[in-house]
Amino acid sequence: MNAEIINIGDELLIGQVVNTNASWMAQQLNDAGADVVHISCIADQGAAIMDAMASAIGRADLVLLTGGLGPTRDDITKKVLCDYFNTKLILDEQVLENIRSFFSRKGLPLTGLNRDQALVPEGATILENPVGTAPGIAFERNNKWIVSMPGVPYEMKHIMESYVLPRLVNGRKNYFIVHKTILTQGIGESFLTDKLSGWEENLPKDIKLAYLPSPGIVRLRLSMRGKNRASMQKVIFKQVRLLEEKIPQFIWGFDNDKLEEVVGKLLKKKSLSISTAESCTGGYIAHRLTSVPGSSHYFRGSVVAYDNEVKKDVLEVPGKLLKSHGAVSREVVERMAVGVRERLHSDFSIATTGVAGPGGGTEEKPVGTVWIAIATREKVISEKFQFGDQRDRNIIRTAFAALNMIRKALL
Amino acid sequence: MNAEIINIGDELLIGQVVNTNASWMAQQLNDAGADVVHISCIADQGAAIMDAMASAIGRADLVLLTGGLGPTRDDITKKVLCDYFNTKLILDEQVLENIRSFFSRKGLPLTGLNRDQALVPEGATILENPVGTAPGIAFERNNKWIVSMPGVPYEMKHIMESYVLPRLVNGRKNYFIVHKTILTQGIGESFLTDKLSGWEENLPKDIKLAYLPSPGIVRLRLSMRGKNRASMQKVIFKQVRLLEEKIPQFIWGFDNDKLEEVVGKLLKKKSLSISTAESCTGGYIAHRLTSVPGSSHYFRGSVVAYDNEVKKDVLEVPGKLLKSHGAVSREVVERMAVGVRERLHSDFSIATTGVAGPGGGTEEKPVGTVWIAIATREKVISEKFQFGDQRDRNIIRTAFAALNMIRKALL
Repeated sequence: MNAEIINIGDELLIGQVVNTNASWMAQQLNDAGADVVHISCIADQGAAIMDAMASAIGRADLVLLTGGLGPTRDDITKKVLCDYFNTKLILDEQVLENIRSFFSRKGLPLTGLNRDQALVPEGATILENPVGTAPGIAFERNNKWIVSMPGVPYEMKHIMESYVLPRLVNGRKNYFIVHKTILTQGIGESFLTDKLSGWEENLPKDIKLAYLPSPGIVRLRLSMRGKNRASMQKVIFKQVRLLEEKIPQFIWGFDNDKLEEVVGKLLKKKSLSISTAESCTGGYIAHRLTSVPGSSHYFRGSVVAYDNEVKKDVLEVPGKLLKSHGAVSREVVERMAVGVRERLHSDFSIATTGVAGPGGGTEEKPVGTVWIAIATREKVISEKFQFGDQRDRNIIRTAFAALNMIRKALL
Repeated sequence: MNAEIINIGDELLIGQVVNTNASWMAQQLNDAGADVVHISCIADQGAAIMDAMASAIGRADLVLLTGGLGPTRDDITKKVLCDYFNTKLILDEQVLENIRSFFSRKGLPLTGLNRDQALVPEGATILENPVGTAPGIAFERNNKWIVSMPGVPYEMKHIMESYVLPRLVNGRKNYFIVHKTILTQGIGESFLTDKLSGWEENLPKDIKLAYLPSPGIVRLRLSMRGKNRASMQKVIFKQVRLLEEKIPQFIWGFDNDKLEEVVGKLLKKKSLSISTAESCTGGYIAHRLTSVPGSSHYFRGSVVAYDNEVKKDVLEVPGKLLKSHGAVSREVVERMAVGVRERLHSDFSIATTGVAGPGGGTEEKPVGTVWIAIATREKVISEKFQFGDQRDRNIIRTAFAALNMIRKALL
């Protein structure tokens, strides 16, 4: 089944909002066996919505629209749906009841604008939205399936998960898409390509390979499509094994794994705790570790020692060391790691110090110079990295390099 | 001028990558006076690229493509451009030289794949890419302007900034788009709409208003288009003033302001320093504060006290308080704020404690219960919040609420 996504909203066309809805929807549709062939972002205008719907219905079996169903006056998708399907808006008592109960649960009054959200196109299937006020709206005409949902991410997700995806999974007819993504850290795209040149040429012809670089991480995606899911999975599995033999030092996970989750699972399995002492990463490693539900089982805390006084006072880095070697040095990062591990009574610790940029670089220690250390009860390991000149990328790359160091130490 | 963006890459259609390129490009094009009318994401396939280019050229004067120019074998945009414009690939010595110097600057060898990136369509304008290896490629035919760029964000940005945007700004003919975005915190979309109902009805007809909600923040965007930039700016300015009178307590910034930057500027201006003590936010506030270049001037550090022992040991929260009131309480959050301010010798501090979820909620303190305190030399202010049931949103909403509390205290 071919699917197409239409995201409605001027905020997308003027670039004020990043389209995370499209990527989430595409991923889910893919997993449910639908091929997303096109994603469009268009204006919150009648003619644009009309045109995009017509083109999409021409190309795809399933057309998903998001946006333009909110309570504010710039939202017009519902009216366009009525025009397109030649129907009119009527009040839906069930939807009104849901909206009423949504507001009373929150202890808030019901506004007139919110009451208008109970107006729905006559003849459409109404999809309940218990996490918001605008319901989803679905039409089925001439073997095409059109679903309009709110643009608020968690409301859209609720309707996708409770209605669209289950129906897709139940309705599919022996056509599958199999993806496997191999996650690497510590090697750039073109070097990885070179390293894999023998393997890549020998890939079966029906496997598609893609390199997906992002700061600190390169993902390798293998894809196949066809009728026999099990046999495709077997073919791909074999290639993954070959990759694991070829570049074991760079692979840390698969598919939607997150490095902080992989690290968290290892810590949990081994009943070990962790803490971080962060200078250049400024709390970003702690943030990633604590973004994982249940991280309180192994994450004890962090000391973000941005100022050298904090390195001295809280982490007990000797002032002498700071003076003689500078804050960005092996000596200091190792003491930071030891200091936080002892101070917070954790089994493992990570420490970072570096020049994130854009200022602060010197001839000897240019922007992008980073030291990372990990400490355990037995030892301290430290490593120097030379990243680039962009602050945000340097912070992310440092965090991934640090998390991967701790992952390796835990194995 | 109408512009259209085509982002090429299977990774977008299977949702593995969020399309941040499109939002950045759209924003820049808008600022340069071009109207983005359509954004498409399509597959890395000849036919799809061909079709999308033809449709886009039909609708827009400027068509920008990204992706499919990398060194790996799944990248085919260049070949499609040759087919579309009826030309062939030739070796460009200047590009080869750039690639060579790019690799030698990094102290890396030149691979055969990277050498192939010096092959460019004959007759095209070649756009230098000093920050990467694949050059940009531009064609001008029948008053249409087509530019193909790498998909790597900072390489694309370089070509946009050095070539596309300057030409747009120089070439425009008295047609402007004026946007003003008002940033609010602490009020939901529909309540804001209600609060603004009198003002909204009286807006001049040629001003377009949009509500853009995201976790913790609602943006209000006013837009006008026309020939007289100065007069449009004046009309919009007047409406912003009215808004500032109507909802002063919720407005914290404008346009692309970030709350952490606004707070940082205030701290810098007043020569004050700040620290954070974070439980439920797990370092996220410290991360946001330190994402701002130059934040080392006012940010001293943070204690992420995830474990109660860290609250006791490092922040000196009395064990008795933790026992009698629980970690999520006014008493504890205030002591955390005082503790970190004293420990890290800062003028101001922020402390957070709460139930981020999904686990850990109780009847009395359900998931989403959050206490935030700020401490100064003179006083401690604390406030309780009831957010929702999603961990990631709760962390973000807590951070924004905390940053806005500190902003207000600094005024």
